[in-house]
Amino acid sequence: MPGNTFGTVFRVTTWGESHGPALGAVVDGCPPGLSLSADDINEELAWRKSRDTRVSTTRREPDQTEILSGVFEGQTTGTPISLVIYNRDVDSSAYDQLKDLFRPGHADYTYWHKYGIRDRRGGGRASGRETVARVAAGAVAKKLLDQNGITVFAYTLALGGIRAQKMDFGEIYKNTLFCPDPEAVPLIMERLQEVKKSGDSVGGVVEVRAQGCPAGLGEPVFAKLDAALAGALMGIGAVKGVEIGSGFAAAEKLGSENNDPLTPGGFVSNNAGGILGGISNGEEIVARVAVKPIPSIEIEQQTISEEGEPVNLSVKGRHDVSAIPRIVPVCTAMVRLVLADMFLQQKAIR
Amino acid sequence: MPGNTFGTVFRVTTWGESHGPALGAVVDGCPPGLSLSADDINEELAWRKSRDTRVSTTRREPDQTEILSGVFEGQTTGTPISLVIYNRDVDSSAYDQLKDLFRPGHADYTYWHKYGIRDRRGGGRASGRETVARVAAGAVAKKLLDQNGITVFAYTLALGGIRAQKMDFGEIYKNTLFCPDPEAVPLIMERLQEVKKSGDSVGGVVEVRAQGCPAGLGEPVFAKLDAALAGALMGIGAVKGVEIGSGFAAAEKLGSENNDPLTPGGFVSNNAGGILGGISNGEEIVARVAVKPIPSIEIEQQTISEEGEPVNLSVKGRHDVSAIPRIVPVCTAMVRLVLADMFLQQKAIR
Amino acid sequence: MPGNTFGTVFRVTTWGESHGPALGAVVDGCPPGLSLSADDINEELAWRKSRDTRVSTTRREPDQTEILSGVFEGQTTGTPISLVIYNRDVDSSAYDQLKDLFRPGHADYTYWHKYGIRDRRGGGRASGRETVARVAAGAVAKKLLDQNGITVFAYTLALGGIRAQKMDFGEIYKNTLFCPDPEAVPLIMERLQEVKKSGDSVGGVVEVRAQGCPAGLGEPVFAKLDAALAGALMGIGAVKGVEIGSGFAAAEKLGSENNDPLTPGGFVSNNAGGILGGISNGEEIVARVAVKPIPSIEIEQQTISEEGEPVNLSVKGRHDVSAIPRIVPVCTAMVRLVLADMFLQQKAIR
Amino acid sequence: MPGNTFGTVFRVTTWGESHGPALGAVVDGCPPGLSLSADDINEELAWRKSRDTRVSTTRREPDQTEILSGVFEGQTTGTPISLVIYNRDVDSSAYDQLKDLFRPGHADYTYWHKYGIRDRRGGGRASGRETVARVAAGAVAKKLLDQNGITVFAYTLALGGIRAQKMDFGEIYKNTLFCPDPEAVPLIMERLQEVKKSGDSVGGVVEVRAQGCPAGLGEPVFAKLDAALAGALMGIGAVKGVEIGSGFAAAEKLGSENNDPLTPGGFVSNNAGGILGGISNGEEIVARVAVKPIPSIEIEQQTISEEGEPVNLSVKGRHDVSAIPRIVPVCTAMVRLVLADMFLQQKAIR
Repeated sequence: MPGNTFGTVFRVTTWGESHGPALGAVVDGCPPGLSLSADDINEELAWRKSRDTRVSTTRREPDQTEILSGVFEGQTTGTPISLVIYNRDVDSSAYDQLKDLFRPGHADYTYWHKYGIRDRRGGGRASGRETVARVAAGAVAKKLLDQNGITVFAYTLALGGIRAQKMDFGEIYKNTLFCPDPEAVPLIMERLQEVKKSGDSVGGVVEVRAQGCPAGLGEPVFAKLDAALAGALMGIGAVKGVEIGSGFAAAEKLGSENNDPLTPGGFVSNNAGGILGGISNGEEIVARVAVKPIPSIEIEQQTISEEGEPVNLSVKGRHDVSAIPRIVPVCTAMVRLVLADMFLQQKAIR
Repeated sequence: MPGNTFGTVFRVTTWGESHGPALGAVVDGCPPGLSLSADDINEELAWRKSRDTRVSTTRREPDQTEILSGVFEGQTTGTPISLVIYNRDVDSSAYDQLKDLFRPGHADYTYWHKYGIRDRRGGGRASGRETVARVAAGAVAKKLLDQNGITVFAYTLALGGIRAQKMDFGEIYKNTLFCPDPEAVPLIMERLQEVKKSGDSVGGVVEVRAQGCPAGLGEPVFAKLDAALAGALMGIGAVKGVEIGSGFAAAEKLGSENNDPLTPGGFVSNNAGGILGGISNGEEIVARVAVKPIPSIEIEQQTISEEGEPVNLSVKGRHDVSAIPRIVPVCTAMVRLVLADMFLQQKAIR
Repeated sequence: MPGNTFGTVFRVTTWGESHGPALGAVVDGCPPGLSLSADDINEELAWRKSRDTRVSTTRREPDQTEILSGVFEGQTTGTPISLVIYNRDVDSSAYDQLKDLFRPGHADYTYWHKYGIRDRRGGGRASGRETVARVAAGAVAKKLLDQNGITVFAYTLALGGIRAQKMDFGEIYKNTLFCPDPEAVPLIMERLQEVKKSGDSVGGVVEVRAQGCPAGLGEPVFAKLDAALAGALMGIGAVKGVEIGSGFAAAEKLGSENNDPLTPGGFVSNNAGGILGGISNGEEIVARVAVKPIPSIEIEQQTISEEGEPVNLSVKGRHDVSAIPRIVPVCTAMVRLVLADMFLQQKAIR
Repeated sequence: MPGNTFGTVFRVTTWGESHGPALGAVVDGCPPGLSLSADDINEELAWRKSRDTRVSTTRREPDQTEILSGVFEGQTTGTPISLVIYNRDVDSSAYDQLKDLFRPGHADYTYWHKYGIRDRRGGGRASGRETVARVAAGAVAKKLLDQNGITVFAYTLALGGIRAQKMDFGEIYKNTLFCPDPEAVPLIMERLQEVKKSGDSVGGVVEVRAQGCPAGLGEPVFAKLDAALAGALMGIGAVKGVEIGSGFAAAEKLGSENNDPLTPGGFVSNNAGGILGGISNGEEIVARVAVKPIPSIEIEQQTISEEGEPVNLSVKGRHDVSAIPRIVPVCTAMVRLVLADMFLQQKAIR
């Protein structure tokens, strides 16, 4: 069944494999009259690129978008916007080793069982590279949100066991880790290099915030805003957990602690993370996602071949030490896609 | 926009308000030839009922389902199955107090902003009573899963700050808390009564497991199995977090710790929670959800009226101390709906 | 797969069998704040009833709707509206004869092949009675269209080979045939009685018009307004053809004849039937549907049993001589559903 | 709202403008393991090309497809298949004349009202060129149907008022008109040249047939096979009518004439056009579509400018005299898409 389309009114279909000729997205349902250029998209893609080879892949993709439809004289026309990003730095040689093996923790095994065939080069569609199309589509959503005063951003809350203590959002784009705590940056970087050296990988936590979102977005009871966000974020490769507002901490609280008092001046606190009953309440939306360690590691691991034979595998190739920080712009993009969609959904009825 | 339909192939539409005449579900896409009776559904609804008035509402609903279509001579026919559960014990008097007030932590405020009108009686559609239709639909999904050897169950992992230490799944249905640790039960019960006495409420954690699920379910990249589960579970009222397998703990792990080694005999561990790359890997599926405290509490709280005037509010009426344990069968139902849908989706292509 | 849901923003799910306990519809996505009562719906259902036993079934259904959700203090709330119409005059005895036979021209044979099981009583879900739920849902759509100045009506253009010559729309509701030509009415009635006497049935043509529809409705390229109307109307049982505007006559015209000249005062003609490029152009929308003769006839016909044995069958029971005029309000309802949906879809982007 | 996606299980999203850089389609939900090459697609596109400049546009597009994803080592992998066809022979000069004018009978006017902006070059997305993406996607559907013994073809039944009398399907691909009657070909060709000379255009009728389709396809009650076909075919630009089997002729028949007798050897006739109750009955599926004359004609016509000023317009540029025969492969493609989708939908439940 199709699973590559996201959204109802603002709807994105993505395609492409890590080592195929290109990846892309078709954005359908985008309102007409938004200014949009390839630069708008490339700017977002730049944040997703590998930016520090000490801790991430040496694959160097220019990630230049071509807009093949849906824009006329610099404006969206209401027809589908086709975005294509060609792969330029493909090297599948490292995958010869993996030809008929399943990497532990990777989708190799499940794609094989699902489809009976898999594009093994670079992880095929299960590669993190797939997310380039999400970020491209998210850049279009951003234009709609900008117009309506909604801002989304994300950052590294924790990485390799080190948690940001200060929350200086002005710092986020100043370091390659998207970390709001400048003092945590060198500690994390040291940890990442150490992990890399040992041939291992690490996980972390990303936090996403949306500001300026009006009350009333989200469609009960199954397409609630928090349900949509959870699905959107959990659907990013390597994500194993999502929480909104006080999240898992709410499970240990009393109602009198967790309820956000409401005053004529607004909510006094934001344990709700901006969402009540699945509908935005006008406060800042706050979500966190747990990111598992990249499964492709050099440390030797037990696995099996397609024929079921046991093998000890050390994965070579160009891999990140952590999906963070490169997953940060992907989280941003997915939240933008959800909000753009919900914003237009609400317009339909009021 | 419509938000009350769930699923793609096995598709459920629910409707109904807490204090309206009835609630119900239409199940469309159910394969023909499954045996199905009202008793099958009522049996599941019984688990969702308030079972211990020391800690839950005194509202007593018989929750008897009428099957109005889609079943002929005891078998599903492939046409839509309409299920109706009439409300029998409605008392809206306690809501007069709340006529034009917004309960802190509740959806009152957001429904008002979204729709400009709200059925205030008993929380309307935002009430936990809404989930009776989910459980009814889930009972239909169960018939399909039973036929295919897939079993889903859930239980209370933590409640009011007390966590189950033993995991004796045989105990789950023997206590009104659905707790697998019989020693934790009296401790939790004591805590709940104490909280109730203070006019407060508490949160907790539910864990859900699916056994017998074949490898290959889930549709990358947006309709991944974990994305679908996260959306399904986060879309239950009061849920603020969802994690799969090692979940948030994965964020602090190394790849060499978190990867599940693969041997000819299967996976050695299950940090993946049965899902790799968004597709089931044949292992047990494990998810956890964080449940916030019920927002309706007697302890006085600050709020405002529809006119924006500040009010101190103590919520009376028939409320549970915690959404747990009554949310346990709802989590089970939602996971069943996801798996039934994904099972049929996979059939379409292989 | 599910096939019982119609529409994207204004979305209707119907259910129910001819001889089951009830039929109904769930309307999701209806904007809040519309006044709605059971009477509003019953009024539309009354037009669909068998109104002249000389030419239609003697089954007498009161067709009283119960609104089970989504309406509070007389207004829609934005939550799903559940409509139920109980069957009161069920007599399945005539179907014993058909227990394991397939009626020629009927869905008996195809339901059997599709599902491997069928509710044979009264044709089950394949009965014309199924449309009661469509008309009920259409009555909700009517409230939305009324509010926005859009009016839909339909009438009998031809029946039993006799075509209305005059188009006096004021006459439509004055005769039981919904015929705009009062002079044609007695001729058609005579023909119908003659056909009935011979144990046969006849087809005809229904025309539907929508007035007041703004330019801009319809979503290219697959969800065009004409595509949606064609799907909606062809999906009514017994319909075998649909045309818009000049329709099949356009196939024989020159461009210079078929193009509607455009002047500052509007379009000079309406060969387009109000739709250009799949989008409404502000003119009256005009569609016609070809309705085949009712397949259940007393005249003996060749058929086979479920075991494949040849049988000569004369169908007894309570059947109409023609699906017209009772299909007229169904066509109206389907066009209303399409327009309500397209109207809200357009709101989402502009 | 998005309208550029077609299908539920076998799902196609198309994009692209007549004079933009490219057009394309993303096919999602295609089963894995089908052999597929660019040649397979180009072969189908070749049938859609302008083949006789006496009666069709002089625009010469190579229509070479690039497969950018979803195929590995010559086989589909189950992931989305991205197809791109670059425009190579674009000349927008003729459209300068039309910059702010609305062509009568064309979508210019309605796109303007819908979106408030339009890509006027070559008709933008409303151009017949849009269908190149449909044919490309249909070629993928063909591979699935081939594997399952289902064959779809279409032909010119009538054109410019001349109707094919003989039905020799072996002749269809032997003439540039796709006409099964070789004797009608020169007559039609003469008529087309005459019409062209006069600066006018003409309509016609296309018939489509599907052979080998098993009984059981189609999803009642709204996603019936005939409803899906009607929507698919009416959604092609220039189509104003669709009929199945006896179609509009059924409206004038008696039940005893129109019912197809059923014998142990199968149906004796096929007035049903292969569909009963919206479900295929195993017989040949037969549909006809009415195609209006191309609206862009040289004969002077009344129209208005965007400012509402009256203008007399003679449309220059490279236009076909009739949408037929180039629409023939488009009808084939749309029916293939419907059948591929319905085939997989049925697999999901049985």
